[in-house]
Amino acid sequence: MVIGAGVAGLVAARDLVRGGADVLVLEARDRVGGRLLNDELPGGEPIEVGGQWVGPGQDRVLALIEELGLRTYPTHVDGRHIAEVGSSRSVYTGRIPRLNPLVLADIGQAQYRLDRLARQVAAADPWLAPRAGELDGQTFATWLRRTAHTAGGRAFLRLVTEAVFAAGPEDMSALWALSYVGGAGGLDPLIKAAGGAQQDRVVGGTQRIALGMAEELGSRVILGAPVTDIEWESSGVRVLTRGGPTVRARRAVVAVPPPLAARIRFAPGLPGDRDQLVQRMPMGRVIKVNVAYDEPFWRDAGLSGQANSTVRALGAVLDNTPFGGSPGVLVGFLEGQHADAGARMTLDERRAQVIDDLVGYFGPRARSPLAYIERDWAEEEYSRGCYGAFAVPNTLTRFGPALRAPIGPLHWAGTETAVKWAGYIDGAAESGHRVAGEILPRFR
Amino acid sequence: MVIGAGVAGLVAARDLVRGGADVLVLEARDRVGGRLLNDELPGGEPIEVGGQWVGPGQDRVLALIEELGLRTYPTHVDGRHIAEVGSSRSVYTGRIPRLNPLVLADIGQAQYRLDRLARQVAAADPWLAPRAGELDGQTFATWLRRTAHTAGGRAFLRLVTEAVFAAGPEDMSALWALSYVGGAGGLDPLIKAAGGAQQDRVVGGTQRIALGMAEELGSRVILGAPVTDIEWESSGVRVLTRGGPTVRARRAVVAVPPPLAARIRFAPGLPGDRDQLVQRMPMGRVIKVNVAYDEPFWRDAGLSGQANSTVRALGAVLDNTPFGGSPGVLVGFLEGQHADAGARMTLDERRAQVIDDLVGYFGPRARSPLAYIERDWAEEEYSRGCYGAFAVPNTLTRFGPALRAPIGPLHWAGTETAVKWAGYIDGAAESGHRVAGEILPRFR
Repeated sequence: MVIGAGVAGLVAARDLVRGGADVLVLEARDRVGGRLLNDELPGGEPIEVGGQWVGPGQDRVLALIEELGLRTYPTHVDGRHIAEVGSSRSVYTGRIPRLNPLVLADIGQAQYRLDRLARQVAAADPWLAPRAGELDGQTFATWLRRTAHTAGGRAFLRLVTEAVFAAGPEDMSALWALSYVGGAGGLDPLIKAAGGAQQDRVVGGTQRIALGMAEELGSRVILGAPVTDIEWESSGVRVLTRGGPTVRARRAVVAVPPPLAARIRFAPGLPGDRDQLVQRMPMGRVIKVNVAYDEPFWRDAGLSGQANSTVRALGAVLDNTPFGGSPGVLVGFLEGQHADAGARMTLDERRAQVIDDLVGYFGPRARSPLAYIERDWAEEEYSRGCYGAFAVPNTLTRFGPALRAPIGPLHWAGTETAVKWAGYIDGAAESGHRVAGEILPRFR
Repeated sequence: MVIGAGVAGLVAARDLVRGGADVLVLEARDRVGGRLLNDELPGGEPIEVGGQWVGPGQDRVLALIEELGLRTYPTHVDGRHIAEVGSSRSVYTGRIPRLNPLVLADIGQAQYRLDRLARQVAAADPWLAPRAGELDGQTFATWLRRTAHTAGGRAFLRLVTEAVFAAGPEDMSALWALSYVGGAGGLDPLIKAAGGAQQDRVVGGTQRIALGMAEELGSRVILGAPVTDIEWESSGVRVLTRGGPTVRARRAVVAVPPPLAARIRFAPGLPGDRDQLVQRMPMGRVIKVNVAYDEPFWRDAGLSGQANSTVRALGAVLDNTPFGGSPGVLVGFLEGQHADAGARMTLDERRAQVIDDLVGYFGPRARSPLAYIERDWAEEEYSRGCYGAFAVPNTLTRFGPALRAPIGPLHWAGTETAVKWAGYIDGAAESGHRVAGEILPRFR
C-alpha cells in the first residue's frame, strides 16, 4: 500500500498495479496531487498554486505527461527581462543582465566553482563525495561567502538560493545544496526558464498529472484518510487512519515529505538513524502568488514578465498567463525569510506589498489586478512548507543512507529521496519508480 | 492541563496546583521523569541512565531538591584525571592537563573568545544579539574553525561540544551554541565537575526529583496516556490520547521536547512560524553507559575516574559510584557520531568497544565488570534523543520567538525553552515555573 497521493505515491502505485500487485493509496487530503494544486482564474481557467514547471532533462515527468495524454507549452519568455541587484537595475534580453562587470565576473566564477563542485557530489550518495564531511559541516551561506566576493554577487546567489529552495543559504548544508544542483545538472538548468526547469507548462495545470494517474487507479485511491500509525513487522504492516479505514498490507510506501513522515507513529519505533534524519530535514517556506490582469499588459511594453530582484520581497516573477492567453497572469514568490515576514502580515498588507513590488517592476498598470490568488504552503497541514525539504548541516553525512534504505516492509518515496531533480515533480516520479522497483521483485 | 511528566511538566503542574488551578498531567510513558530515569546496579542501588548531575548556579533545581527533602553529594573527583588529545596523554590534577603548551594556549584563547561572545548573546532572546544573523548563519564548527588554530585545540573543542550537546559542532548553529554557553555562565560551568554542572549528585538518583513531585500531585498524573491530538480554540483545549482519556481544559502546557511536540496533531494547525521551528530543532544523540565493578579500583591507583579523549569513542568518563560507595561505577558516553556508530553495532560489539576504551583509560582491571548498563535515548519513542534538542542554523533568527510565545491556550515548556541552563534539569524547572506564571494570572 501507498501513503500519500502526490506524484511520488501515485507513480509508485501505478507501477505496482502494472506489476500485478494489489495496491491501495491512502491520502490525507480530500484531493490528490500533494504540492501540485490547481486553483481557478477569473473566467474559470485553471492556474497552479503549487508546483508548475517542467523542463529538459526531466525525463521521467515528461514521459509521464506524454503517457497521460497531456500537452505542454512553453513558459512565455519573449521580451526583455528585469533584474535588480542592489541599486542597479537592468532591463535586458538573453541570459545575462547588464550589471556591473565586476559583479558579473564574480557571479561567473562563483557559478563555475559551484557547478564544478556540484558535479563531484552529484552521485546518488553525496555523503561519499570527496570532502563531504567538510561541505556538510558548513552552511551553504558559509560556502558562498568564501566563493563570491562582491556584495552584488553574494546578493545574486542568495536570490538564486531562495528561488530554488524557498530557503536562505544560511538554512541548509552546503553539501545538500551542491548535491541538489548536481542532481539537476548544474545551476543554469535549475534557474533558467527556456532551457531550464521553468521552460514548459502543462496545459490545464500540473495537477492534471496527479489527477490523470488517480483516475487510472480509480477506487484504489482513498481520500480523507490521514495515516496516524503504522504497525509493522517483517511480514507486513497495519496502517491506521484518522476517521478512515485500517488497512493491512505486505508492504508500505511512505510517499510524504520527511517532516510529515516524522509525524506518523511507527510501532515498533524506527531505528535512531531514520528518526534522527527526519528530525533534520525541514521544509522550505514559500507563499506563492498569482496576480491576474485583464491582459498581459507587460508584453505590450516589450517585457517578458520575468523579473528578479535582490531588494524586493517578491524576488522572482514570471509570466504565468494560461495557454489560452487570457487573462494575463504574473506569478511571484515570497520565499524563505520573505515568506516569514509575509505570513506575519494581514492578507491586505501582504497583497499591498506584492502589488507594490509588481508596480515597481512593471509600472502603474500592475496596480489594478482582476484577482489576487495566494497560497502559503507552510500553513498546509499536509505539506507544512514548500518547495521541498532540505537537509541541515551534518545530516547527510550522519544519516544520508536512511533517506532511501527500506526498513523491513517500509519503503521511502517522495521527491526529497530522488537522486536527480530532488524537489521537482520529476524527482517525485523518480522516487515512485524506485520504490516500485524495490517491491515488485519480491512479489515474483 | 499539562502534557509530559518530565521535570518541566511536573514543576508547572505543581505551581499551578499551588496557585489554585485544577490540573491534570498526561504522560505517554508508564513512568514519570522523562529524560531522568533510574535503573538498578547489582545489589539494588539505583543508578541514573539519564540526566544525573546538578551544580552551582542551578538555583531552581537545587531549590526543588531541597523542597522535596532530597540530599545531594559530590561527584567523586579526587585523584588524577586522564586527558588524551590526539596522541598525547596527560594524567593530571587540577583543571588543566599537561599538554603541548601551544595547544593549551590555543584552547585558552578560544575559550576566552567563546565566553566573551557567549556573554553578548546570553540574553533571553539570542536572535536580538549583535551579529545574531551572521552567527546563526554558520555552524558552530565554522565558528570554531575560525577561532581555534591548532589541531589539538580543535579536537578538544569538538570533544567539549560533544560532551555538552551530544552532537558535533557541525550539527548546530553557532548562535545556539553560544546562547547555550551564555545561559550557563560560560564554558567552565558547563564542563567542570567540581564548580560546574557535574559537581553534585542526588542521593537515590535524580529520577527521585520527578517521583517526589509526582507523589505530591497524586492522581492528577495519568501515566500511559500519549497525547495524539490537541484541538484548541481561544477558550480551551480538547486533548486526545492513544488508549487513554480525552481531556478538556482551559489551557494546555506542552512540556515535551520540540521534535515530540511536532508529532502532536494540532487542530487547527499551528502557525507556520511555530511549525517551522519544531521542524528545525532535532535532538542530540547519546548512548549512556554505566559499568559496575566490585570496587572503584581506579581510586586505589590514585585516579579520579575522570577521563576524556579526543581519540576514543567513549570520549568522556566519570566516577559514578553511588552514595554508599559500592559497587564501583564508571559512567561513559557515546555522543553524536560515536552514538551513530555505536547504534549500528550489536550489543556485544558495543560493549566490547566500551570496555576496550575503559581498559585503555584505567588498565586491565576495567576488563571484568560486574554489570554493563546502557541506554540509547534515540531509540526511546518518547524522547527520540538526548541530552536535548538544539537549533540548526538560521532557526533562532527566523523562528526563535516561537520557542516560548503562547498560542491561544497553548503554552510551551521543556528545558529547550529555558533562558538559563537550557538542556539541564535546571532549565526544565525554569520553564515549568515560567509557564505557570503565564497561566496563573489569567485565573485570578
